[in-house]
Amino acid sequence: MAQELKDLTKRSQNYSQWYNELVVKADLAEQSAVRGCIVIKPYVYAIWEKMQRKLDDMFKQTGVQNAYFPLLIPKWFLSREADHVEGFAKECAVVTHYRLMNDPNGNGVVVDPEARLEEELIIRPTSETIIWNTYKNWINSYRDLPLLVNQWANVFRWEMRTRLFLRTAEFLWQEGHTAHATSEEAQAKAIEMLNVYGDFAEKYMALPVVKGVKTANERFAGAVETYTIEAMMQDGKALQSGTSHFLGQNFAKAFDVKFVNKENQLDYVWATSWGVSTRLMGALIMTHSDDNGLVLPPELAPIQVVIVPIYKNMEQLAEVDKVVEPIVNKLRGMGISVKYDNADNKRPGFKFADYELKGVPVRLVLGARDIQNGTIEVMRRDTLEKSVEQLAGIEERVKELLGEIQKNIFTKALKHREEMTFRVDTWEDFKARIEAGGFVLAHWDGTTETEEKIKEETKATIRCIPLDGEEEEGACIYTGKPSHRRVIFARNY
Amino acid sequence: MAQELKDLTKRSQNYSQWYNELVVKADLAEQSAVRGCIVIKPYVYAIWEKMQRKLDDMFKQTGVQNAYFPLLIPKWFLSREADHVEGFAKECAVVTHYRLMNDPNGNGVVVDPEARLEEELIIRPTSETIIWNTYKNWINSYRDLPLLVNQWANVFRWEMRTRLFLRTAEFLWQEGHTAHATSEEAQAKAIEMLNVYGDFAEKYMALPVVKGVKTANERFAGAVETYTIEAMMQDGKALQSGTSHFLGQNFAKAFDVKFVNKENQLDYVWATSWGVSTRLMGALIMTHSDDNGLVLPPELAPIQVVIVPIYKNMEQLAEVDKVVEPIVNKLRGMGISVKYDNADNKRPGFKFADYELKGVPVRLVLGARDIQNGTIEVMRRDTLEKSVEQLAGIEERVKELLGEIQKNIFTKALKHREEMTFRVDTWEDFKARIEAGGFVLAHWDGTTETEEKIKEETKATIRCIPLDGEEEEGACIYTGKPSHRRVIFARNY
Repeated sequence: MAQELKDLTKRSQNYSQWYNELVVKADLAEQSAVRGCIVIKPYVYAIWEKMQRKLDDMFKQTGVQNAYFPLLIPKWFLSREADHVEGFAKECAVVTHYRLMNDPNGNGVVVDPEARLEEELIIRPTSETIIWNTYKNWINSYRDLPLLVNQWANVFRWEMRTRLFLRTAEFLWQEGHTAHATSEEAQAKAIEMLNVYGDFAEKYMALPVVKGVKTANERFAGAVETYTIEAMMQDGKALQSGTSHFLGQNFAKAFDVKFVNKENQLDYVWATSWGVSTRLMGALIMTHSDDNGLVLPPELAPIQVVIVPIYKNMEQLAEVDKVVEPIVNKLRGMGISVKYDNADNKRPGFKFADYELKGVPVRLVLGARDIQNGTIEVMRRDTLEKSVEQLAGIEERVKELLGEIQKNIFTKALKHREEMTFRVDTWEDFKARIEAGGFVLAHWDGTTETEEKIKEETKATIRCIPLDGEEEEGACIYTGKPSHRRVIFARNY
Repeated sequence: MAQELKDLTKRSQNYSQWYNELVVKADLAEQSAVRGCIVIKPYVYAIWEKMQRKLDDMFKQTGVQNAYFPLLIPKWFLSREADHVEGFAKECAVVTHYRLMNDPNGNGVVVDPEARLEEELIIRPTSETIIWNTYKNWINSYRDLPLLVNQWANVFRWEMRTRLFLRTAEFLWQEGHTAHATSEEAQAKAIEMLNVYGDFAEKYMALPVVKGVKTANERFAGAVETYTIEAMMQDGKALQSGTSHFLGQNFAKAFDVKFVNKENQLDYVWATSWGVSTRLMGALIMTHSDDNGLVLPPELAPIQVVIVPIYKNMEQLAEVDKVVEPIVNKLRGMGISVKYDNADNKRPGFKFADYELKGVPVRLVLGARDIQNGTIEVMRRDTLEKSVEQLAGIEERVKELLGEIQKNIFTKALKHREEMTFRVDTWEDFKARIEAGGFVLAHWDGTTETEEKIKEETKATIRCIPLDGEEEEGACIYTGKPSHRRVIFARNY
């Protein structure tokens, strides 16, 4: 492991390679035998579980309940919503048969040609269609509304270019699907869930995000409006980290979901959907980690504190064990997850490198001399600073330090984003800034045509129109036509 | 809802119809647009979440970690283990294409014939193959063992005859897959996880189970030994509720997973796998529920206590609200989930019937007169008994009552099983007993041939050879050949 760490490419050398190596070396994920599908290994799955738990609690506080809808969707469901099918048909996994048989020529098993489905099924790329086909039977009157349902599920989109966590064929996510009696209520819900995502990202992931609305071109297929939280990675590229969609009455019309409103009239139901996925793991890694490996926010770290003993012989180890035991118990009692690694088959240096690679926020090191002196060595993973602290009361100090680290990595990421966000007013500056990386705040004439031309020439897309942006008269960076506010351009993952 | 309840078929009339109606009327699940795939509705999903949380904690206490493996499996993986492919090839969902296109004739979307996969993929019916193909890269030495991994996932088996929760094409489950250095250790792990399932079923589901081993004929495809927990439903039929398999070196050999043992020799790795699924919801319903609806064990009930106010006008309601508020807060503080239903648009009788249907363990009813008298009406769902209790200290009484209900429904189910378990020694008695329902303890000559003939003639299968059964000399119920212990025969779901 120490050897592996030494081999980790530096971010300054090749950011993309650093990322791929880190994911593999820190035992986070690996490619599977099926192209584009990854294996999520236990350490990172434990982080995902913590993220799920926090998000799930936040959803439930807004009145959302969980449910589960089928994995497979009849093909014709997709065609019901015109934009939706355009967006998803090209990347579907299609189930056509329901049985295998022994190869008559003795070569293992083959698809049984007799077992062809009459109507092909697709693996859900997202579940609006099957859910709205179900809601049809659940909603009759305004008394049945709002309907606030979420599911934790796997989805599948046959991506051509995949990347660990960031873009995989199968991924894990949650998808919320709500139904409302009025347009206003649905719009408010879409914004409410966007704010939940923003709060979650900032509070738990220590990930500063810009909340904004997508342009028509970047909208979810079938949405009236798509809201997004956009984060900036260390290399200045944007990562779309979560989206919340106001779907208008599009899916209600596609699946004929009507309700009797308070005025006793039939009307189509209003909808939202919103989701975040295991892609967030990519955001987490690329926001905080460094050339020594992962840096994890204490709020999501599977192991928050590791304690490593230093000893010359088994007697000394026994002495350290005795001092560490009450510390471990006290930390656990404070709700802090701690690992005491007194395994005798690895040297301390190996352990140090391994826990740095894994991003454990706080490391305590204790030896015979420390015990004599009543001290303990503390290292914080975010800054790699070491200090010698009093052994007495170390638990309180650790708790405090975890809070400091959580805050510090957020502040650092925010500062980085601010330093890498530029207001640009000329096309030459724009091109140079985009090339150098970062968010560029510029004027845009509001047309898809201009947006696409800018993308062609610079590979930059409009990440969002910030919700907290101010109105400002200006001229489009590309066409010079009038514009009333700046939007964020960036290259993105 | 009151009307719907009245319409619920009685168990004595038609048990199977009662079950199907209850699942639908209590809003637990429904058939989806895809044959054999169900929608798991929020109320039952909340029960499933509680079950997951408890099981997951129990797994983790035994050192198991969670991870996630791909949904799709290359077809040829299945062929690697001869028994495994026999068991699963006939019910596979096969993915053959990766894209849809617009129908040239304008009829929606069709499968793009150009987008045919070179090697077909199947939706996992279980994950031994893809996991052992992954473990190959994770295991080199005895130091990498044991490897104790679980995943919570959806799986798919194209069942011809499906039944809500009990047998569905897609279902949710957990599957544990462990790797060990020795046969003994793997066998012990299989038994350990069987015991976890047994403890979970009895402690949380209040479901008495018989632990046993399956006959060769009923073994998991690819296992050396399959252990099971078998429960008896109210109609005397058996329900296999969880299985744990000792896989020997079968999958290690199929995927060439070798390790260097302590003696520095190469050997194949030993394996187990074990799983429980949303089928447990069926067991829960069919063990405790009655003609009024669901009866839920307090340990798993999403709402443990419901409070319904009785009032003549809004002033009285305000008075009741004021008394109920501190009760609700105190119960919540004790970790009890409570709902105060003071909705004014439904009559108390409607609410009563609805919460009975939903199986809420304890109902409190409070009116103006109760407040004057310092009393409150308490109803327990398991026995439907009502009593009037002192309002002061009602929270402690409720807590106690929840414990009593949990215990009572377990005892009741156990008593039912004991009364419906028979030791039988003649073929005539055997046939009559099987026809009447229940577990039949009988001698069997140990051959698959006899087992299959008995099944043909009586529709009874050997549910298991009980682990705690005593040796006893006897004669096979069917052939008269010698036998050394009794096995459990029953009809089953």
